[in-house]
Amino acid sequence: MSKKSDAYDDALEQLQILLVETQAWTIDEGRKTLIVFEGRDSAGKDGAIKRITEYASPRQTRVVALPKPTERETSQWYFQRYAPHLPAGGETVIFNRSWYNRAGVEPVMGFCTPAQHEQFLRDAPRFEQMLAENGVNIIKLWLDISKKEQAKRLEERVEDPLKRFKVSSLDSEAQSRWDAYSGARDRMLDETDHKAAPWMVVATDDKKTARLNIMRHILRTIGGPGARADKPDGDVVFAASKASGRLFR
Amino acid sequence: MSKKSDAYDDALEQLQILLVETQAWTIDEGRKTLIVFEGRDSAGKDGAIKRITEYASPRQTRVVALPKPTERETSQWYFQRYAPHLPAGGETVIFNRSWYNRAGVEPVMGFCTPAQHEQFLRDAPRFEQMLAENGVNIIKLWLDISKKEQAKRLEERVEDPLKRFKVSSLDSEAQSRWDAYSGARDRMLDETDHKAAPWMVVATDDKKTARLNIMRHILRTIGGPGARADKPDGDVVFAASKASGRLFR
Amino acid sequence: MSKKSDAYDDALEQLQILLVETQAWTIDEGRKTLIVFEGRDSAGKDGAIKRITEYASPRQTRVVALPKPTERETSQWYFQRYAPHLPAGGETVIFNRSWYNRAGVEPVMGFCTPAQHEQFLRDAPRFEQMLAENGVNIIKLWLDISKKEQAKRLEERVEDPLKRFKVSSLDSEAQSRWDAYSGARDRMLDETDHKAAPWMVVATDDKKTARLNIMRHILRTIGGPGARADKPDGDVVFAASKASGRLFR
Amino acid sequence: MSKKSDAYDDALEQLQILLVETQAWTIDEGRKTLIVFEGRDSAGKDGAIKRITEYASPRQTRVVALPKPTERETSQWYFQRYAPHLPAGGETVIFNRSWYNRAGVEPVMGFCTPAQHEQFLRDAPRFEQMLAENGVNIIKLWLDISKKEQAKRLEERVEDPLKRFKVSSLDSEAQSRWDAYSGARDRMLDETDHKAAPWMVVATDDKKTARLNIMRHILRTIGGPGARADKPDGDVVFAASKASGRLFR
Repeated sequence: MSKKSDAYDDALEQLQILLVETQAWTIDEGRKTLIVFEGRDSAGKDGAIKRITEYASPRQTRVVALPKPTERETSQWYFQRYAPHLPAGGETVIFNRSWYNRAGVEPVMGFCTPAQHEQFLRDAPRFEQMLAENGVNIIKLWLDISKKEQAKRLEERVEDPLKRFKVSSLDSEAQSRWDAYSGARDRMLDETDHKAAPWMVVATDDKKTARLNIMRHILRTIGGPGARADKPDGDVVFAASKASGRLFR
Repeated sequence: MSKKSDAYDDALEQLQILLVETQAWTIDEGRKTLIVFEGRDSAGKDGAIKRITEYASPRQTRVVALPKPTERETSQWYFQRYAPHLPAGGETVIFNRSWYNRAGVEPVMGFCTPAQHEQFLRDAPRFEQMLAENGVNIIKLWLDISKKEQAKRLEERVEDPLKRFKVSSLDSEAQSRWDAYSGARDRMLDETDHKAAPWMVVATDDKKTARLNIMRHILRTIGGPGARADKPDGDVVFAASKASGRLFR
Repeated sequence: MSKKSDAYDDALEQLQILLVETQAWTIDEGRKTLIVFEGRDSAGKDGAIKRITEYASPRQTRVVALPKPTERETSQWYFQRYAPHLPAGGETVIFNRSWYNRAGVEPVMGFCTPAQHEQFLRDAPRFEQMLAENGVNIIKLWLDISKKEQAKRLEERVEDPLKRFKVSSLDSEAQSRWDAYSGARDRMLDETDHKAAPWMVVATDDKKTARLNIMRHILRTIGGPGARADKPDGDVVFAASKASGRLFR
Repeated sequence: MSKKSDAYDDALEQLQILLVETQAWTIDEGRKTLIVFEGRDSAGKDGAIKRITEYASPRQTRVVALPKPTERETSQWYFQRYAPHLPAGGETVIFNRSWYNRAGVEPVMGFCTPAQHEQFLRDAPRFEQMLAENGVNIIKLWLDISKKEQAKRLEERVEDPLKRFKVSSLDSEAQSRWDAYSGARDRMLDETDHKAAPWMVVATDDKKTARLNIMRHILRTIGGPGARADKPDGDVVFAASKASGRLFR
C-alpha cells in the first residue's frame, strides 16, 4: 500500500472515531440529524455514506433510499412518502437521494410536469424551514462530479462484475442529458438554498479527498465533540451561495 | 315516531344519497378530500362522522383517530405522525380530532409547552397551505357546544352502559377548565383561519340540525354533484371570521 | 314501528350492552379475540359487524377488510399480509373476509392455482393452531344464505342509490357460479374445521334473527360476562361438523 | 499486506462475484431466500453479513435486526413482528438474530417464561415448515465461538473507540452465563433442526475462514450459478445433526 493511501486510511479512521463520539453526543442530547446526499450518478454518494455509517449506532441510524413511488404515492402530497423517515430525537437519518429527485431526475427525464417542478422549488424551502424550526438539523450536500470523470466511472461499472446492481437503465442518460442536469442543478441550488437548510457543494472527482471533507463538514455542523474536526478544505467543500463559476459544467 | 323525526330521517337520507354521488365523482376525478372535525368533548363529532361515512366507499374513505403519541413520536416533527394518513388521489380522509390537539387539549392540560403551542399556531397554516397547493381540499369544522349542553351529555354518558367506552378520564376537565378551552379555541380560530383552509363553526346543541348542516357544507365545498345541496343554515354553520359574539362561552 | 321490530331492537340493545361489558373484561384480562366473518356476497357480514362494533372500544377494536393483494404480496408467504393485523393483548379483531378467500373466491374465480388452494387447506388449520396455542381466541363464522335470497339482495343493491359502493363487478358471478361456490364452501368446512378454531354456520336468510344469534354465539365463546348470554338458536347457528344436509345449495 | 491476507482477499472477491451472479439469478427466478444468523455475542455475525451484502442488490436485499419488542408486541403472537420482514419473490432477507432469541438470550436472561420457551421450540419448526412449503428457502446458521475467543473479542471491543456502539450491557453476561447459553444452544439445535430448515454450525474462531465457508454454504444451498462454489470445509461448516462433540463448550 502506498504512503498516500496510508495517510487516507489514518485520516479516515480518526474522523470515524470522532463521528462515533459525536453521534453518542447527539443521542444523549436527543438531537435530530438529517443528512441529504444529492448528486449525479456515480458522484460518490454510496461510498461516502458507507464510510459515515460504518461504525454508527445501528439503532439510531437509518439510511433511506426510497424506491420509485407507487401510483398511489404519486397522487399524494409530494413529501408524504418521505415524512415517515424523518429522524426522531437522537436519530441520524441519511437520505441517499431525497425529495430533490423532483429538482433533478424528474424534470430532466420528464417524470414530473414543469408545474410540479416549480411547485416543488417553492415547497422545499418551506418544508425544510418547518422541520428546522421543529429541531431537525438539516445538512444538504451536492456531490459535484465532472463529465469526464462520470464517463470513466460509468464505464468501469459496466465492466466490474461486483457492480452489476449499480448499473441502471438511466446511466446512459446521465451523459447524454448532461447539460439538462446542469441546468436543473443550477436552479435547485438557486431556489432551495436557504438559511435553515443551506446547500454545500462537494467536488468529488477525487473520491478520497471528498469523503474526508464531507465528514469534516458534517462533524462541524453537528457540533458538540464534532466541533474539534479540522475545517474542510474550501476548494472541496463550499457553500452553494459561493459556488459561482466553480461548478462542473 | 314523531313527524319531526321523520322529516330529519328523510333529509338525512337525501343528503346521504347526494354524498354517495359526490364521492363517486371525487373518486373519478382523483380529488383529495380532508375533513377535520374538532370540538369539545361530546360536541357531536362521532355522531356526525358516523352519518357521513355510513354509505361511503370503504376503500376510498378513512376515519383517522390517532391514539396518544408514543414517546418516540413526541420527539419527532409534530406533523410527522399525521402525514401517513393524508389522502391520496380519490380518497376522503376524516380526522376525528387532528393536529389541532396542540391548540386545544395539549396546551389546556399542559401536555405541551407554551413554546410548542406557539410554534404550532405558526406551523398549522403553513402546513395546510402546502397541502392545499398540492391539491388537498381541506374542510375544517369546529363543533361548538354550550357549557350546559355538554354537562348534560357527559352525565348521560356515564349512566348509559352502551357509552362505557366513550367515558374518559378527561371528561371532568372539560367542564372545570371550560374557560381555558374557550380561550384556546379563540386563539386557534384567530391564528389558523386562512384562505386555503378556513374554519367553519357549527352550533351543535341541536344535534340533528347540526348534522344536516354539516353535510350540506361539506357537499357544497367539495362541489361537483354536491353543489346541488341546499345552503347550510347560516345560524348553524358560519365562517370563523364572522363568529364574533356567536361562539359559546 | 311494528311490535316484532321493537322486540328485535330491545334484544339487540341488550346484547350490545353485554358485548360492551364483555369487551371491558377481555381488555382487563388482556385476552386476544379474533372473529372471522366469511360468507357469500350479501350474506350479511357488513350488517352483523356493524352491530357488533357499534359501541365497541375504538382503541381495542379493529375491523380488517384487506384490499386485493399487490403483486409483491402475491409472491409472499400467503398469511404474511394478514399477520400484522392479528390481535395484541386485550384487542378484538374482526376480519371481514379473511385468509379464507383462498378457499372461496380465489379458486372459484381462478385467482389462485389448484395447488395453492390445496396448500392453503393444509396450512390454515396449522396456522390457526399456532395462533390458538399462543392465546388467540378464534371464532370462525360462515354466514350461509340461500340462492334465492342472494338474488333478491343483489338486485335491491343495484337499485338502491345508498348501496352504490357495495355493488361489485363480481356480483353477477355469485349467482352464475353458485354451485362452484357451494363446492368450495363444502371443502373449506371439511378441511379447516378443527378443535382449536371450529367453524360455526349461521343461516342468514332472516338477517335480524341471524345477527342476534351471532352475537349470542360470540358472547358465549368469549366467556366472562358473555357467558350470561342466551344460547343461540340451534336452527340458526350450528357447528360445521353437524351441518350435514343443513347448508344451502 | 501478507500473502495469507492476499489469498483471503482474492477468495473473498471471487465469492462475492459469484454471490452477485447468484442473486441476479434468484431475482430473475423470483426465488425467496431467508438467511438466519444466530450465535453468541461477537461470534462474527455482523462481519459475515457485511461481506455478503457488500455488493448485493439494494432493492432486493434486506438485513433485519429487530429492536427489543414493545409491550404491545410482547402480547402478540410471537412470530407476528417477524412476519412483515419475510422475503417476497426475488428477495433475499438476512436476519441478524431472529425469532431464535426465544431459544437463547430470552430463556437464559429470564426475558421469557419456561413455558414460552417450550412453546417456541414446538412452534419454530412448524412455522418454518409452512414457510418452506410456501417457497421460502431457509438457511439457518449457528456461528459457534469458543469461550476464550469470545473473552478476547469482548475485551477488544471495550477498548476500541470505533466499536462503542457494539458494546452492550449484556456483554458481561455472555461469559458469566456461558454454560447456560451452551445448554440453550444444545436444546435449540436438537428441537428445531428439521429437514425443511436444517441448522448448519460454523466454527468462527478464525473469522476469515469462517466467512469464506459461510459464503460457500449459502451459495451451494441457493443453487443456480452458486452451485459452482467450492464445498465448504467440513471442519468449519457442518450439519447440526453431526455436531455431536464438535461444539464449543
